[in-house]
Amino acid sequence: MAAHPVSPLAPAKFPALPAMPGVRFATGCTGMRYKGRDDLMLVELAPGSTVAAVTTRSSMCSPPVLWCRQHAKRGRIRAIVGNAGNANTFTGRDGDRAVQRTAAATARLLGCKKEEVFIASTGVIGVKLPVEMIEASLPQLARGLEADRWETAARAIMTTDTFPKAARRTARIGGAEVSIAGFCKGSGMIAPDMATMHCYVLTDAKLPATVLRTLLKAASDKSFNAMTVDGDTSTSDVVLLCATAQAKHARIGAAGDRILADFRAKLDEVMVELAQLVAKDGEGAQKFITINVSGAATRDAARRIGLAIGNSPLVKTAIAAADANWGRVVMAVGKCGEKADRDRLVIKFGGVTIAAKGEQVPGYDETPVARHLAGREVVIDVDVGVGKGAATVWTCDLTHGYIDINGSYRS
Amino acid sequence: MAAHPVSPLAPAKFPALPAMPGVRFATGCTGMRYKGRDDLMLVELAPGSTVAAVTTRSSMCSPPVLWCRQHAKRGRIRAIVGNAGNANTFTGRDGDRAVQRTAAATARLLGCKKEEVFIASTGVIGVKLPVEMIEASLPQLARGLEADRWETAARAIMTTDTFPKAARRTARIGGAEVSIAGFCKGSGMIAPDMATMHCYVLTDAKLPATVLRTLLKAASDKSFNAMTVDGDTSTSDVVLLCATAQAKHARIGAAGDRILADFRAKLDEVMVELAQLVAKDGEGAQKFITINVSGAATRDAARRIGLAIGNSPLVKTAIAAADANWGRVVMAVGKCGEKADRDRLVIKFGGVTIAAKGEQVPGYDETPVARHLAGREVVIDVDVGVGKGAATVWTCDLTHGYIDINGSYRS
Repeated sequence: MAAHPVSPLAPAKFPALPAMPGVRFATGCTGMRYKGRDDLMLVELAPGSTVAAVTTRSSMCSPPVLWCRQHAKRGRIRAIVGNAGNANTFTGRDGDRAVQRTAAATARLLGCKKEEVFIASTGVIGVKLPVEMIEASLPQLARGLEADRWETAARAIMTTDTFPKAARRTARIGGAEVSIAGFCKGSGMIAPDMATMHCYVLTDAKLPATVLRTLLKAASDKSFNAMTVDGDTSTSDVVLLCATAQAKHARIGAAGDRILADFRAKLDEVMVELAQLVAKDGEGAQKFITINVSGAATRDAARRIGLAIGNSPLVKTAIAAADANWGRVVMAVGKCGEKADRDRLVIKFGGVTIAAKGEQVPGYDETPVARHLAGREVVIDVDVGVGKGAATVWTCDLTHGYIDINGSYRS
Repeated sequence: MAAHPVSPLAPAKFPALPAMPGVRFATGCTGMRYKGRDDLMLVELAPGSTVAAVTTRSSMCSPPVLWCRQHAKRGRIRAIVGNAGNANTFTGRDGDRAVQRTAAATARLLGCKKEEVFIASTGVIGVKLPVEMIEASLPQLARGLEADRWETAARAIMTTDTFPKAARRTARIGGAEVSIAGFCKGSGMIAPDMATMHCYVLTDAKLPATVLRTLLKAASDKSFNAMTVDGDTSTSDVVLLCATAQAKHARIGAAGDRILADFRAKLDEVMVELAQLVAKDGEGAQKFITINVSGAATRDAARRIGLAIGNSPLVKTAIAAADANWGRVVMAVGKCGEKADRDRLVIKFGGVTIAAKGEQVPGYDETPVARHLAGREVVIDVDVGVGKGAATVWTCDLTHGYIDINGSYRS
């Protein structure tokens, strides 16, 4: 793979992430695909850690995804093994065996059950995973586990990503302060070949797996499920929410407990920030686009309208060219199958109302809109005039860079 | 608009289309947008002509679309007026008035009812249609009607199209021979801004409107509804099937009549050929892609799987680069929500089986596949292994040309 220039939308630096009680990291280089960089990550979680998972809905999902989905039901986790460069997808029975062997080797090294080892692979589809290269690397990783290695871990799982992605908040649970920190990789929603999305959100709070599941589903709907680069869903997407139970706070019985209000809000913030980072590193991205939809029949309808706009190649190419082509937003609203009232539709670019009452507003001046579109961050507001459903969706523009990255030969 | 080079997939020449009894054409230049070319087309049909329409499903459809949909219920047609450069979409009440005025002016000139005048506009969205320029041009068009002007008509409705599109067959109805000829514009499924699809299929057969409706729906599902360029549905798509009733043949009572078997087959052929021409003129297209899906739960499921593959930017960019990246086909099958069996999935490129039984076939040699992908016409066969549903879908690759065309500023 050719290296791509760092996205102009990347944050200035990786955030400061202090050590989290109960979490240690190690990374290494198997050499299976990349030269001169780490491509294998091990995260160890303290005994008693709990987990919830959200995975791709693809009917072609990979053996690692099936493994995570199955064992997330137990709700117990002791380790995450992630590798970059090979997705171990569509690899037949050898793919399942590779997962089994990776889990078994990790369990032996860490003294846990293999069902407590979660596995995520990202990279090319259809090429057998050289699992022996992972097995050979794992002992050294297990010996080198350290607490303060977030950035190294976030870098080891990158594929076409141009920068490592992480976010952190502290939250109060009653009188106690806990930490929520996450990192992810993904250069879109998105590509099965070198751009799957993996995300790990960790907290030192003590939360039952049932609570984690509810929190993760709600946060995913507001974050990763409201973000798109190209509408191509990976076979390998996995988001894990893990709690190490090291913090001391009141016992939590249900996700809806009032004592969890701040935690819920901060978890949403972490996951939204991570989702935005993925859109900002979308393949070829030059502009970050926020689409606020209101007036829809329901919140889900609003999100589907937002995704129709965010996935439209015509909207995305227009924005790449800083063209205030609002007619394409009309088109995208029209095509998506959700209720919308043409004569109540309101479209704003950069806060400037362009279209309302079924036509371009009288005296519309494109100058401030053109200035807004010339920037790196574009905001589109759409009210479809039929109800109270609202949602926000994030995406990036569609540029020559996307064609270059995805039209380059695999080898 | 900058002129774009003619698609390398264009036919060598426009087909020979003889005059059809009951049909006359005229074209002219209103000057509303383009310089030095015709942008207005008038088709006159003999008294007694019948019509059926298929229109876009967009909730933001244009006043001309609403007009055609409404009056197609009556089943009578005497004229078609098409203009290029302005879609008369999202233009408020002025848009409705422009349609009314165009129909009234045409009806006066041809001595028919205004409800028998069908109108199709294509071009930029949200700009008021200067209907007075159409009214000023129509008298000259009405005076200059001629039978043998298919190509001139097909050229007058072009926008980002790089070549005029037409197809013709003769069909037998009992002992009689009738003609079926159609022309269309469209450079995708596709863009609302300068690339809407309009299609007119004409026959001298004598067929009730009820029969035309059934025939048109069936043929559309196999042709235009099985073709995509970018998955962006226009606000202005219209397909009309018109019968001038000039031919002498047995009376037809129902679309399923055995005597219509040859006509049905030939109509399908004309519409499939036209749909293929649109994909071959897809914005930026360098390769024409045929996707044959089999083994699906139903025919509709097969078509949806085919469209998921055909709309995937990752599949389309890979083919643009002649990259046999079959993992992206696995991804597209997986994401589309239709039933598919990973371990029975079979993928072929250019007739060569690449993937089967859940993995790449043993001893797979990419050489002949790479040779196939280097050509202009790419064939992908996918069997998803769950049923007997089959369908074929056509599309084109996604290239830098698409970005250039759609990222260029409107003015």
